[in-house]
Parts: sequence; C-alpha cells; structure tokens
Amino acid sequence: MNDSKTLLTAAITAAKLGGDVLMRYLRDGVEIRSKDRSDAKTYDLVSDADIESEKAIGNYLKQQFPDHALLGEENLQADTDSADLWIIDPLDGTNNYAHGVLQFAVSIAYYRDGKPVVGVVFNPARDELYTATIGGGAFLNGKPIQVNQERTLAESLVGCGFYYDRGAMMRKTLSAIEAFFENDIHGIRRMGAASLDLCHVAAGQFGGYFEYHLAPWDFAAGALIVSEAGGQVSDANGEPLRLKKTSILATNTHLHDAMLTITKKHH
Amino acid sequence: MNDSKTLLTAAITAAKLGGDVLMRYLRDGVEIRSKDRSDAKTYDLVSDADIESEKAIGNYLKQQFPDHALLGEENLQADTDSADLWIIDPLDGTNNYAHGVLQFAVSIAYYRDGKPVVGVVFNPARDELYTATIGGGAFLNGKPIQVNQERTLAESLVGCGFYYDRGAMMRKTLSAIEAFFENDIHGIRRMGAASLDLCHVAAGQFGGYFEYHLAPWDFAAGALIVSEAGGQVSDANGEPLRLKKTSILATNTHLHDAMLTITKKHH
Repeated sequence: MNDSKTLLTAAITAAKLGGDVLMRYLRDGVEIRSKDRSDAKTYDLVSDADIESEKAIGNYLKQQFPDHALLGEENLQADTDSADLWIIDPLDGTNNYAHGVLQFAVSIAYYRDGKPVVGVVFNPARDELYTATIGGGAFLNGKPIQVNQERTLAESLVGCGFYYDRGAMMRKTLSAIEAFFENDIHGIRRMGAASLDLCHVAAGQFGGYFEYHLAPWDFAAGALIVSEAGGQVSDANGEPLRLKKTSILATNTHLHDAMLTITKKHH
Repeated sequence: MNDSKTLLTAAITAAKLGGDVLMRYLRDGVEIRSKDRSDAKTYDLVSDADIESEKAIGNYLKQQFPDHALLGEENLQADTDSADLWIIDPLDGTNNYAHGVLQFAVSIAYYRDGKPVVGVVFNPARDELYTATIGGGAFLNGKPIQVNQERTLAESLVGCGFYYDRGAMMRKTLSAIEAFFENDIHGIRRMGAASLDLCHVAAGQFGGYFEYHLAPWDFAAGALIVSEAGGQVSDANGEPLRLKKTSILATNTHLHDAMLTITKKHH
C-alpha cells in the first residue's frame, strides 16, 4: 500500500502535467482566436485541451500505479468504490477556460475504498496549488490554509454554481440565492469552477459554497481540502458526502447549519 | 489643456500609488487576521486601506492638476459636470478585498465636460493594468484588447452585479439572470468588482455585463475601456450612459439588443 506522501507527490506531478497542456492550448488558442474567433474552432480547441490533459495525467498515473483504477469525465470509467481509485478532472471550469477567464483548474484525488486520502487542485494560470492529505492538513503552495472564523451569514461571501440544466435546477439555485440574500449574506459569488470554489472555502475567502448538481471529479479533491482546512462538507440535504452524491454544501463549519437550512429548503 | 497622453500617464501613476496602498494593507491584514480574525479589525483595516488609497491618489492628482476637480466615494465631492473631472474609486471590489479574493481594483477616469477622455483600471494583486484614451483604443498591460465576436447569448458568459439592496433590486437582478438562462446563455458570472467586470467585456471574456445600481466611480473608467475596445455601453434601458446614470449595460456590441431586451424588461 502506498503511503500518502508518495500518492500526494504523484498527484502533484500529474496535476502539473495536465496544467502544462492547458496552458499550451490556452496560449495557442489566444493566437488562433485573435485571427478567427469562430466558435467551432474555440470549442474544438477546448475539447482537445481537455482530452490531452486527461491523457497526460492518466498515462502518468497508470505508469506509476498500474493496478489502480482511474475515474474521469472523458474516458476513465472506473467504479466509485474501487479499492485504489484516482478521480480526475483534467479541466474544471471549462467555460471559463473557453472564454479566457483564468479561473480553471486540474483536480486530482486519490480515494481508498471510497474514502479520500489525497486531494490536489491546481490552477496553472494563477500558479495556485492546493493540496491535502487525510489527517495532514491543507495547503496552498506549501503554506497551511484554514477556513475562516465567520459565525454569521452577514459576514460571509457565499459561492455557488449552476448546473447546465436551464429548468428546475437553475430556478432552485436562484431561489436559494434569494434566500441567502434575505438572510443578509455579505455577497454571492459565481466564479465558475467548482474545485476552486471549494478551495476558496478552504482558504477562508468564502464562508461557504453550494451547488446542486456535480460529478465526483468536480468535488473529490476539493472536499478533502475543505475538511483538512477545518471545514465541513455534506450533500445539500446534510447527508454525508459520498462520491455517488451529486449535490454539495461546503462551509467553514460554523455556518453549516445556517446554510443547510437554506439549501435543504430550496432543493 | 492637457493632452490625453499626459493625463493617461498621470492616471496610471495615481492608480499604482493607490494599488501600493491596497497591497500593503492586504499583506498586513493577512497577518493580523491570522492572529485575530475578529470582524471589526478586518473592516477597520479595509476602511483604512480605502481611505489611504484615495488620499494617495487624490494628493498626487491635486499636485499635478491643481485646478481639476475630484470625485470619489470617500471625500471627493466634485459635481459630475465639472470641466476637468477626475473620478476615483480607490478600491472597487471592497468585499472581495475584505475576504482575500484577489478580484479588486483601483479605478481612475478623467472626464472633460462630462465626456470620457482617459480610463484606467488596475488590479494590483494580479498586476493587470487596463487603460484607454478616447479614440486611442484599449489596452491590457500595453497590449491592445478587443471585445469578442460572439453573436448569440448561447456563446457568451454574462457578468452581473448585485447592489447592497436586499429587496426589489436584488429580485430584479435574479429575474434578469433567470431570463438570461432561459435565453440559453453559456454561463453567468458574479465576480464582485464592477470595474473589472467591464474590463472582462473589453478583453473579450464576457459577451456582456449588467448591473442595476452603480455609482459613477464604479463605471467611469471601465465604460471608456469597453467602448475603446469596440464594445457598446448604455444604461439598462438603452439610454446613453452619463455619469449621473445608476444602471449599466456593456456588451461586445453584437449582443447589445439581445441583452437590452432582458435588462429593460427586468428592471
């Protein structure tokens, strides 16, 4: 069994391999788009970047850990309860990336028997590397991070996300936002990359973050980073967060009950 | 009469003086907050940063242009139709700044007889300097920027902002967001600093941006940067944007009518 330090080192190396791909396509993309900004080309490019980033990450991890399973958006189809499981989002924040908004990341987690052991979220455009190992704390570029100590919603920024759905799920998210405003939150933020929203909770910028429809690769790493930074994670109904869950509520712990009251009602 | 190059150089110098203040307080603040994160201290600090940044900017501009008028949030009370008017936001994105989200800026504009001549928006944490002079184009760190060429909302990210109001204005903003989703926008973004939202339109990241309640210092510089980057600005009802206006719609031009239909209805 690999120790968590070995696994963390591999996850970081893999995340940087993916990040290199994303930055190379981003630079090329800027050039292509400045000549001909046709949409098809932009989206082919984003899709290519996504696939090549996943390949770079997947190939490296398969080489290092031939008997481990890999789960990801594109081609990696392992089951969420595999004994040794890598959960990979080679490009979280695709829409930001496609539009040149530098809020995107590579997210890589290692789960053993369904439980988090290592989480890495890397934003290559900002050079921000968030890491955590179970029981070992959370870090941004090697420095310890902690959730903030805000005790009321009135002090807090709350992050949120919208699923691609344009119907019931969107309206539920909007009604939750309205309820947060009525509870006098300091402000709402919609930044566009779930893995980084979770890291903003972990690093004390957001008091909490919620989203109603996510895939495991969106939150597998970020959820561990939040809990290792002293925060609390659950699904939007307050049930324990498992990889099969599709909603998430992550907070600085103090605000969990207050936020849960809202996400439970508007869900 | 000063030429626009002289005025631009002064605006950049002033913005960097303000930015230095913000970064100094941010570093000190991080230290203070990690020892004792009581809210009162954090907010005193933000308020001090805001005031000291305004002083640094105001003193410099008064020294350079003793007969010009200055308008800003804190102590600068000139009328919006002064002949030679500097419009200053020493810290746009206060809530982001207070929570350590690095999306904040200094905004400085020079208007002559109510019309824009120079606009500068500087994010000192990201080292992003957006500049424009009337008829001279728009730039990010000296490189020309242009709005994107998206023709449909379905291709676009749309930025928005919420006023501190927690009643009618907030609900109108949410109903506009719902209408944008129903028109199948690619995504909504709420980043938290109006001057930078405008720059994201100018630099081609957002197809458009709207907000229903702003002060002139929030948009005076950004609006010029958008129009010099090939975009279009109006108020949320499609009327010409003047400094006395309180709502704004800024787009890549192509999307102006489509967005206006929504902001007019939900306003």
